[in-house]
Amino acid sequence: MTGWLAIAGLGPGSDHLVTPEVTAILAEATDVVGYIPYVARVAPRKGLTLHPSDNRVELDRARAALEMAAAGRKVVVVSSGDPGVFAMASAVFEALEGRPDWQALDTRVLPGITAMLAAAAAAGAPLGHDFCCINLSDNLKPWAMIETRLRHAAKADFAMAFYNPRSASRPEGFTKALEVLREECGPDRLITFARAVSTPEEALLTVTLGEATPEMADMRTVVIVGNSATRRVGRFVYSPRSAG
Amino acid sequence: MTGWLAIAGLGPGSDHLVTPEVTAILAEATDVVGYIPYVARVAPRKGLTLHPSDNRVELDRARAALEMAAAGRKVVVVSSGDPGVFAMASAVFEALEGRPDWQALDTRVLPGITAMLAAAAAAGAPLGHDFCCINLSDNLKPWAMIETRLRHAAKADFAMAFYNPRSASRPEGFTKALEVLREECGPDRLITFARAVSTPEEALLTVTLGEATPEMADMRTVVIVGNSATRRVGRFVYSPRSAG
Repeated sequence: MTGWLAIAGLGPGSDHLVTPEVTAILAEATDVVGYIPYVARVAPRKGLTLHPSDNRVELDRARAALEMAAAGRKVVVVSSGDPGVFAMASAVFEALEGRPDWQALDTRVLPGITAMLAAAAAAGAPLGHDFCCINLSDNLKPWAMIETRLRHAAKADFAMAFYNPRSASRPEGFTKALEVLREECGPDRLITFARAVSTPEEALLTVTLGEATPEMADMRTVVIVGNSATRRVGRFVYSPRSAG
Repeated sequence: MTGWLAIAGLGPGSDHLVTPEVTAILAEATDVVGYIPYVARVAPRKGLTLHPSDNRVELDRARAALEMAAAGRKVVVVSSGDPGVFAMASAVFEALEGRPDWQALDTRVLPGITAMLAAAAAAGAPLGHDFCCINLSDNLKPWAMIETRLRHAAKADFAMAFYNPRSASRPEGFTKALEVLREECGPDRLITFARAVSTPEEALLTVTLGEATPEMADMRTVVIVGNSATRRVGRFVYSPRSAG
């Protein structure tokens, strides 16, 4: 039996946003590995072993998945959204460092609809012009780097998508981010809070930076800040294609 | 008969990357509107009228689609990739400006796998840390703005994904972009050229900025430049999750 590893994105929540490629690979798998709520999205079946694990153990999880693939299992590591955007793909490649045996395994990344694309679609087209994508969690990088990136993004007039804007344990980071953004972009810039898009808990709110409060975001929210030309039309928010 | 408009993303090329949501809406449509090669990806059937049109007529195409929806047709505007990333969604919202009658229509955006996500997955995980996404075409913005954005993106140490890097009519833009990037990031920074990912013509090439030449890109290529920590492991390229 020849093992393999696939790192697959389940999309933001709805089964209608899971690609046929990912559905097909899950049907072939012997083992599914991932964070508890993502593994819970995979239907149990005979011949499939589910390996749910807690958050913040990404590297251990990646190594366990690689061990199984090396032992001949057909392993899918699942992420929500896209596995290459603040998700498991980088953790798996980190685990490959210094391990030529694991590097020789059949390993593939299967893309998914990442949260900011679903959020932007639900709101209209706020990412329709040049944009950036920043993980606001300071677990893996210092706050100073986040602030530097916010200021450059504002000066470049990028629209911005933020993942992990506000954790229960460190709510002050998003408060500081809003202060930096108001300073750089002014109070009239549009900001969209898109929570749990494509799930029954979906909630969308667009306000100005002057009106925004930290409590409008939680860890299930993607936050999108427009560029200087981003505007409302009807019930939508969009960034025009042209600028300058 | 009540008309509606859906703006749907067909993904980068493979049918295995088209979401079930998009497949379902295409099955309900009476009319499909879009750029010739994208409309060609929709299978003809009885009751469905295909409206292929040439490139660079996005606003006319959007208005024609809205006219049909207002007349009671069930219209899908198709884009490749994701409709909200340098594609038709912004053009449709531009067409809604000053038209409250069209703003009242049932209009939805259905996300898709945008080219940079498929390209990143094929290469490994080069967008696994904070990144930006820039359309290098200067059809709709001045070159000076592109250069400013490249410099801020480099100073912010973002990984970067570039769409439309090099057109046959204006090949010099990408030459200039490579010069700016070499100046800001140095010759050792990794750059990936991902052409026609998920199609039979898929081709991947990763080199350093010092080795990169403009001819490595064409209009079917997404270019991804790593951040300062992006590295190779085995046959993959990835950006580590942590920085600083």
